[in-house]
Amino acid sequence: MTSSTHSTDTGRETGSWFPVRDEANLPSDLRGLFAKARERLGFVPNVFRVYAFRPQRLSAWFAHYRQLHQPSERLSAADREMIAVVVSAANGCLYCLVAHGAALREELGDPILGERLSYDWRRAGVDSRRRAICAYAEKLTLRPREITRADLQTLLDVGLTLEEAWDVAEISAMYNLTNRMAMVTNMLPNPEYSGQARPG
Amino acid sequence: MTSSTHSTDTGRETGSWFPVRDEANLPSDLRGLFAKARERLGFVPNVFRVYAFRPQRLSAWFAHYRQLHQPSERLSAADREMIAVVVSAANGCLYCLVAHGAALREELGDPILGERLSYDWRRAGVDSRRRAICAYAEKLTLRPREITRADLQTLLDVGLTLEEAWDVAEISAMYNLTNRMAMVTNMLPNPEYSGQARPG
Amino acid sequence: MTSSTHSTDTGRETGSWFPVRDEANLPSDLRGLFAKARERLGFVPNVFRVYAFRPQRLSAWFAHYRQLHQPSERLSAADREMIAVVVSAANGCLYCLVAHGAALREELGDPILGERLSYDWRRAGVDSRRRAICAYAEKLTLRPREITRADLQTLLDVGLTLEEAWDVAEISAMYNLTNRMAMVTNMLPNPEYSGQARPG
Amino acid sequence: MTSSTHSTDTGRETGSWFPVRDEANLPSDLRGLFAKARERLGFVPNVFRVYAFRPQRLSAWFAHYRQLHQPSERLSAADREMIAVVVSAANGCLYCLVAHGAALREELGDPILGERLSYDWRRAGVDSRRRAICAYAEKLTLRPREITRADLQTLLDVGLTLEEAWDVAEISAMYNLTNRMAMVTNMLPNPEYSGQARPG
Amino acid sequence: MTSSTHSTDTGRETGSWFPVRDEANLPSDLRGLFAKARERLGFVPNVFRVYAFRPQRLSAWFAHYRQLHQPSERLSAADREMIAVVVSAANGCLYCLVAHGAALREELGDPILGERLSYDWRRAGVDSRRRAICAYAEKLTLRPREITRADLQTLLDVGLTLEEAWDVAEISAMYNLTNRMAMVTNMLPNPEYSGQARPG
Amino acid sequence: MTSSTHSTDTGRETGSWFPVRDEANLPSDLRGLFAKARERLGFVPNVFRVYAFRPQRLSAWFAHYRQLHQPSERLSAADREMIAVVVSAANGCLYCLVAHGAALREELGDPILGERLSYDWRRAGVDSRRRAICAYAEKLTLRPREITRADLQTLLDVGLTLEEAWDVAEISAMYNLTNRMAMVTNMLPNPEYSGQARPG
Repeated sequence: MTSSTHSTDTGRETGSWFPVRDEANLPSDLRGLFAKARERLGFVPNVFRVYAFRPQRLSAWFAHYRQLHQPSERLSAADREMIAVVVSAANGCLYCLVAHGAALREELGDPILGERLSYDWRRAGVDSRRRAICAYAEKLTLRPREITRADLQTLLDVGLTLEEAWDVAEISAMYNLTNRMAMVTNMLPNPEYSGQARPG
Repeated sequence: MTSSTHSTDTGRETGSWFPVRDEANLPSDLRGLFAKARERLGFVPNVFRVYAFRPQRLSAWFAHYRQLHQPSERLSAADREMIAVVVSAANGCLYCLVAHGAALREELGDPILGERLSYDWRRAGVDSRRRAICAYAEKLTLRPREITRADLQTLLDVGLTLEEAWDVAEISAMYNLTNRMAMVTNMLPNPEYSGQARPG
Repeated sequence: MTSSTHSTDTGRETGSWFPVRDEANLPSDLRGLFAKARERLGFVPNVFRVYAFRPQRLSAWFAHYRQLHQPSERLSAADREMIAVVVSAANGCLYCLVAHGAALREELGDPILGERLSYDWRRAGVDSRRRAICAYAEKLTLRPREITRADLQTLLDVGLTLEEAWDVAEISAMYNLTNRMAMVTNMLPNPEYSGQARPG
Repeated sequence: MTSSTHSTDTGRETGSWFPVRDEANLPSDLRGLFAKARERLGFVPNVFRVYAFRPQRLSAWFAHYRQLHQPSERLSAADREMIAVVVSAANGCLYCLVAHGAALREELGDPILGERLSYDWRRAGVDSRRRAICAYAEKLTLRPREITRADLQTLLDVGLTLEEAWDVAEISAMYNLTNRMAMVTNMLPNPEYSGQARPG
Repeated sequence: MTSSTHSTDTGRETGSWFPVRDEANLPSDLRGLFAKARERLGFVPNVFRVYAFRPQRLSAWFAHYRQLHQPSERLSAADREMIAVVVSAANGCLYCLVAHGAALREELGDPILGERLSYDWRRAGVDSRRRAICAYAEKLTLRPREITRADLQTLLDVGLTLEEAWDVAEISAMYNLTNRMAMVTNMLPNPEYSGQARPG
Repeated sequence: MTSSTHSTDTGRETGSWFPVRDEANLPSDLRGLFAKARERLGFVPNVFRVYAFRPQRLSAWFAHYRQLHQPSERLSAADREMIAVVVSAANGCLYCLVAHGAALREELGDPILGERLSYDWRRAGVDSRRRAICAYAEKLTLRPREITRADLQTLLDVGLTLEEAWDVAEISAMYNLTNRMAMVTNMLPNPEYSGQARPG
């Protein structure tokens, strides 16, 4: 499954069941994305390496995805990572739980709460606003057919705007795509995430 | 939930629990998308009207989505609609079953097979290549954590390239996003779909 | 599995994993049933051909079954087909969804609503009386142990008599039998159903 | 819910959430059925009393049902009760587990095996022929959509004829109807069953 | 899997997939336990014989287990057996349903109610205090993550002390251990249980 | 729910829905246990504080529990923590995932592998011996009724003795008890665990 255009070393690191392309051969927008990640994080997240097997798809997915993590007044960056983590827990996605678990600990500025949310949002000790968001994200993940207008109302009732309520839904839907891409390719989280934003 | 920028008439038609924006106020790329749809189909699919509540999101989602329906040598346009329909059946998504059910009947040139696939791919009478594709799409939808390298092999064994196997996965993942957006907004299929590509 | 008394041609058409008997050799009551069907519908439904492997069983099942589709004042023929379709959707029965889906479109005089009900009664747009009926039929199908006296009350509260409430239950129970006979024999719907009662 | 034509005493005994009709007012065929039961068993099974709320339905159901318990060469009366009990255990139906549990102990002539089958056929210690039958009945009850031609073959491989394999399927399907009628009416088993065919 | 220290005869009786040790070679505390059981019941329960493959484990488990069956003012010995039976029914544990089913019939002094509880506590006809206890035990067994403080309140509301509410929880948790030990070893119930505390 | 014998401060820290007893009033064996924990870990695990509401139960449970973590030749301390974590993940138990997640990272001497196992053992990258152990523990947790003699054989085939195979089963069964006690009391993990045995 490998050829001169695929780096097996990188393949082994990423876990991918699909060939992993040499960074040098990627389109320039993706080389730029990789460079920026290296600059900001110190490494290239494996989701980029693995998804780059289909370069245009990675570009399209990422252009959509990154819109969803832009914070708004009542749905912060931490809230958005929380949704990512709750959906990933419901689906059992290793890659996203480790990578977004780290981001959530960072954004919350609370490594203990962030870890708790990755295992069980019900007992993590969040306030009623966040409970409503978590419950909605989990229901849309596990029992989407049963979502009703009343579920939407629970988000408005804790102070979200219609746009923000939509975002809870769209982030949840997006991680149902992303989790499956991670699981179906066997994507492994970069080891760097494990130590990020831990207590003391 | 409505205002001068939201057409309640359109809202009622689409079923949406979110405001539906006036087409006239949408960005030009979306007005172009709507116009093209009207030209090709005779109407604007409700997914466009509903998703346009967040115009940039619709643009980003659609740019990703439409890549996935480009046919390849061994994964035809009909095969790709089949994956959409199998995932939508597993999730129980009304909008996608009606809209992509119509597209599937059309692409297959077989209204009876298309209808059967929308209810039960196991008994629809497809060949072993298509059975492998349907089984993979359904498993990735319902039990993603249990997907293994051996499941990927079943796709390669029926003649798909690695790129096409990836496409089966990515289309399945995409409809797990799309189905949830349709269900969480209460999107209703346009009535026009029901009569398209029926027998006799 | 075939012999001189089994028509393989018919077997192929019906999909049955059991032998399909020659119509000519069936008891006279069944030959009459087939003739009447041909007269009324233009064809013999495959459920008759397949179930006729055990002729007396078909007679007994049908004598019970047809009682349940007799309309009453507040539970019309369309309502009864709706129950059949909701149960068949919960069980995922191809034969019944296609055959009774056609009957439901016909009885409702609304091909779009009928198709919607076959995919998701929750979003199909029916009134509260029909929602109560659909919810009851689905619960009795999927979680019969959890049915309570309060569930029965929901039917009485929307205006059904005790006899009609019983009918909702008995029709649901009957389709739990019928769906399983269709699935366990691999019964395929006659192609004629697909085009019946479609829009314009 | 009761009137002069309904005996509340009987209602309390049977558990039924529907009115229980006076035996004296029932059609003669049902009065005959009740009399024969009293003669053979010493009491009238509550399924008759409860189902008699709709007399013609009881007649039709019973005419079908009793055909299925006729023994054949390789599918004995005990085997047929075993299928009833395995399906009833999968559905969790109190009435049928008690009433057919008693019949199974009797037919097997083995009260210990009969009791074990009512709780867990997998550990009950039956031979491979009976294991195949139990596995098929349970799968058709719980995952009917996944039944394949290969499942049918497992029955033929342990020596059943096609007619007997059909009977395993039809008995299983029938108890999916019967269990639901018992649960939806809240039918309680007659106390007499509990002591029947117990050890020493 | 057997040696001079394992009695195959006993192995066959118990059903165990692990070796069953000779009673003579067990530590004296266990020989005392066996002797006391023989005196009180007339036989040694198979759970003792099977678990004695690891003698110290049996001693430790039993020391914990027997505390939980000590009756308190508002949670009787019968109530405690009822919890054992409800949990065992939710898990489908043959050994515990037969052995504790017998104990429950005995403690209740009502063989019919005891049998009913082993099949379906919802329809068994118990009062609201016992319904609350059964519902709590079943939920903790099947959906432990969803248990809330409000569930605990339902126990206090029917008159249990905090200590007794804890006991409902701890007995339920214990049978989730015990059921699994019985199922994973293939433990069979002693035949003597089947006839105990039956009607008439 | 609190009184002079209950420290509400401790209650708040532990999350418990039950009163938390003053350490000073506990029996001497438990005071010794708490002291030893403080010495070894620097703090008293909340499981001790919460379970001490019923002091004798804690003593009995712990006497059983600690036997199960004694390493043997082919089932190390790390292997035993792995089983604890896999079962806790299947049940979704926050307390055990955090507390035993820390112990697992420590015992493995591999913080990255330990974290991965807490989210998805299938993709964590363990060898076939550990995969067999994890698969067995998960199956016994989620589908205990379906465990067969062949499942036991998979453990023997990767080199475990019968005693060690038993231990995999008994540890799994024990965490099905322990997880439920943690969830039903709302036990929160001590914050100290989160930073233990993390990378660099």
